[in-house]
Amino acid sequence: MNALVSGPCFPFEFLHAEIIRYEKQREIKANDLEVERTDKRKNWIEQMRSNPQMEVSLLDEQLKSVKQLFIQGNAETRLEALGYRIGFVLVEKIAKDLPRLITELERMKFLCKEFWTAVFGRQVDNLRTNHQGIYVVQDNKFFILTSFPEGKQYVEESAIYLAFPCGIIRGALYNLGITSLVTSSVENVPAVKFHVHMQQKS
Amino acid sequence: MNALVSGPCFPFEFLHAEIIRYEKQREIKANDLEVERTDKRKNWIEQMRSNPQMEVSLLDEQLKSVKQLFIQGNAETRLEALGYRIGFVLVEKIAKDLPRLITELERMKFLCKEFWTAVFGRQVDNLRTNHQGIYVVQDNKFFILTSFPEGKQYVEESAIYLAFPCGIIRGALYNLGITSLVTSSVENVPAVKFHVHMQQKS
Repeated sequence: MNALVSGPCFPFEFLHAEIIRYEKQREIKANDLEVERTDKRKNWIEQMRSNPQMEVSLLDEQLKSVKQLFIQGNAETRLEALGYRIGFVLVEKIAKDLPRLITELERMKFLCKEFWTAVFGRQVDNLRTNHQGIYVVQDNKFFILTSFPEGKQYVEESAIYLAFPCGIIRGALYNLGITSLVTSSVENVPAVKFHVHMQQKS
Repeated sequence: MNALVSGPCFPFEFLHAEIIRYEKQREIKANDLEVERTDKRKNWIEQMRSNPQMEVSLLDEQLKSVKQLFIQGNAETRLEALGYRIGFVLVEKIAKDLPRLITELERMKFLCKEFWTAVFGRQVDNLRTNHQGIYVVQDNKFFILTSFPEGKQYVEESAIYLAFPCGIIRGALYNLGITSLVTSSVENVPAVKFHVHMQQKS
């Protein structure tokens, strides 16, 4: 077992439960969409029959693209959303025995210490803020990238691997009362900077 | 960290990589599908114009349902497929330092001992066969169900949680040269019987 796990032990149970929920919802949504499209198609056919020279663009408006309806964002967005829901749940488990966190800074410190250790296996190496709503959280050995070769070679490839943890951070902060946008930047694998942009004062 | 992980440490890295691959493919597929459907729609419109009273069923044949094209199976099938790909990869890591496994029984024993310990955190409690291509692998404390209340109350709900591990087992066996179907049954949570139906002699 341990030979397969190089980093810390990520809580599989929460991820698995979320994947199940996700696939179930996808199934329900596909069924709904199918019904909706069948109805629209009937409409469309009737309109075409009554007016065969009708502008196709008018019909297209009725029938939004499959992509718009069904995909909802690209791979990165969906990985971020998966992480968001897991972060939201995890923070409750981790914060439940702690005193209430009042200030923004207290919450950010909790994120960097207790939460980071529990979920990502270590404390962060640095936390900075410009005092204008942006925090930069730096982890010099971010667990997801520790299996990558070190250095600048795989910086680009690493981006998609950070969508999920960005979501985890955003979800955790949201459940702590902080609405934020979280992005990441990598200059040297496995060091990552997470940029937390506050959306409103909590 | 440990407070969040009740069972063994599932290798997160492999699962995460697979989820990324899955979401990327979904994106590519959605784009392809969109192009394909736009073409079909054009065809459809032309046919409707030239023959407004055309049977709708004939048009429908051209335009397969979104569900068929896009979903490919229900939640259970997709969870199983996700597990399959992870099992396939994991077995290579686990078997790489072992001597070559020759017989079917040797491979099944490897599954129940080394593989099971590495991935599911313990050895199985029982392995039986009818010598006609069916093996029953019994794990009385299957790690995914250890967070469920014990007993018969959640037997039904547990089913969807076993799709992923069924896939893992099928993927692992496939990469060991055994083509099989794997199903599960639960009488008392957290005990699970996995039924391995051999599809061809290897």
